[in-house]
Amino acid sequence: MRFVSFLRPCGTPSWGRLDGETILDLGAVPGAPVDLKAALAAGLPHAPTDGPALARIDVTLLPVIPNPDKILCIGLNYATHVAETGREQKEHPAIFHRWADTLAADGAPFIHPAETKRFDYEGELAVVIGKAGRRIAPEAAFDHIAGFAPFNDGSIRDWQRHNSQFTPGKNWPATGGFGPALVTPDEIPDLGSQRVQTRVNGTLVQDQPVSDMIWDIPTLIAYCSTFTQLNPGDVISTGTPGGVGDKRNPPLYLQPGDTVEIAIGTIGTLTNPVIAEA
Amino acid sequence: MRFVSFLRPCGTPSWGRLDGETILDLGAVPGAPVDLKAALAAGLPHAPTDGPALARIDVTLLPVIPNPDKILCIGLNYATHVAETGREQKEHPAIFHRWADTLAADGAPFIHPAETKRFDYEGELAVVIGKAGRRIAPEAAFDHIAGFAPFNDGSIRDWQRHNSQFTPGKNWPATGGFGPALVTPDEIPDLGSQRVQTRVNGTLVQDQPVSDMIWDIPTLIAYCSTFTQLNPGDVISTGTPGGVGDKRNPPLYLQPGDTVEIAIGTIGTLTNPVIAEA
Repeated sequence: MRFVSFLRPCGTPSWGRLDGETILDLGAVPGAPVDLKAALAAGLPHAPTDGPALARIDVTLLPVIPNPDKILCIGLNYATHVAETGREQKEHPAIFHRWADTLAADGAPFIHPAETKRFDYEGELAVVIGKAGRRIAPEAAFDHIAGFAPFNDGSIRDWQRHNSQFTPGKNWPATGGFGPALVTPDEIPDLGSQRVQTRVNGTLVQDQPVSDMIWDIPTLIAYCSTFTQLNPGDVISTGTPGGVGDKRNPPLYLQPGDTVEIAIGTIGTLTNPVIAEA
Repeated sequence: MRFVSFLRPCGTPSWGRLDGETILDLGAVPGAPVDLKAALAAGLPHAPTDGPALARIDVTLLPVIPNPDKILCIGLNYATHVAETGREQKEHPAIFHRWADTLAADGAPFIHPAETKRFDYEGELAVVIGKAGRRIAPEAAFDHIAGFAPFNDGSIRDWQRHNSQFTPGKNWPATGGFGPALVTPDEIPDLGSQRVQTRVNGTLVQDQPVSDMIWDIPTLIAYCSTFTQLNPGDVISTGTPGGVGDKRNPPLYLQPGDTVEIAIGTIGTLTNPVIAEA
């Protein structure tokens, strides 16, 4: 199944199930959880199965989870990207974070701030947590996963490198693409063979299978949940393959007017047009 | 004035004004904001001025703001600490973050996890935001400050250095001391001369005035608010002076049974006993 967060035509927020070009408005069902994060906390198997039907074209998608408490981003998790950055591979992954106010839904604009000329894409697979846990064993990790979605870990490269910590480069508003939908694991028979493919104005610039990750998803969940509790709606974005714009020759930075897409096989395609900040 | 968040003797959360050994329970006033963060958003000048009196000894303090949306931590903001880490000083500060579930109130235990032998203190001055802003000019920064409090940026040093990003060392539960109270700027006639003093079991291990910061508070607020909106209740912890345990010879790590104190002149003293994780 595929779940989405959205604004109804009247502008009120809701969540529901995406079924082709139709969205069942599960948030409209009496007694239903108020949002997708709350629905995950209550357990998706307990979600309503039917609700008022809306045409997808009539709603405005929100980020898959508009309000995650924690967004953990994994750095340096594909050997091709480690190599292009000139960093050495360590025994453990690099973990940084985003705040929720950086997220952008599928179709929503990526905002290019005036303070940079180095706005970059990073296509990634995001994991959404469905069940809380601390010190989760790798073999239990999939019990804690609600599903997956494409993520674009948009980066303001000059600010990312102002000092050692990435926070200032990874937390500009509307730079974290997250959508279109939460796709449950049963929809993805072979997760490892799904390819993370990034296109800028249609040109393929990143393309690697999920199986190329250095630290696989169970390892990431076990590691992160050792130091912090993971809760329903939390997001782990699993790192980007080689091919980022900042390391190309010549570099390829996002400009107002560009369109950037992250396509991950059956998980879906996230599209964000880039606009200049007003 | 001094404002606190606390649990009443009956266990329900509230907030109020600390007046010596008395707390006025402002959250009990009909129509009052539900917590101190909401009171900041509504504007402290609009807060009730009187409420039911409780003895401080009868309540359990909570972290000054128990639920900040953003906790920005500044790294490497005192030359003595930059020198002891062997890092070079950059043009901009290092910014990392904590999640709210890492906070510990004044008097609450610091939890020593089994996964480390390198649990360290970092005494700091925390700034609490009172008024929202983006791209705040340095000269306007103090208009956005609600007040100050001691902070202990407790660090699990081995996990902090697993890779380049500090997140895994700075986000263990009950490792971020924040208290006792939010002290409004009018209570602190000379902020720069206030000394950040850390004591472990009574021994002074850090001791520098706030004026020794490399990037002063207006500069930090201007820098951080360039990339992220600051909102009421958000916290900027302004970095630690030299003398951290990890860089002493021999090293000095926090052990179960220890007591760690951060005293900052008229701003108050934050005390946390260290316990082993159950």
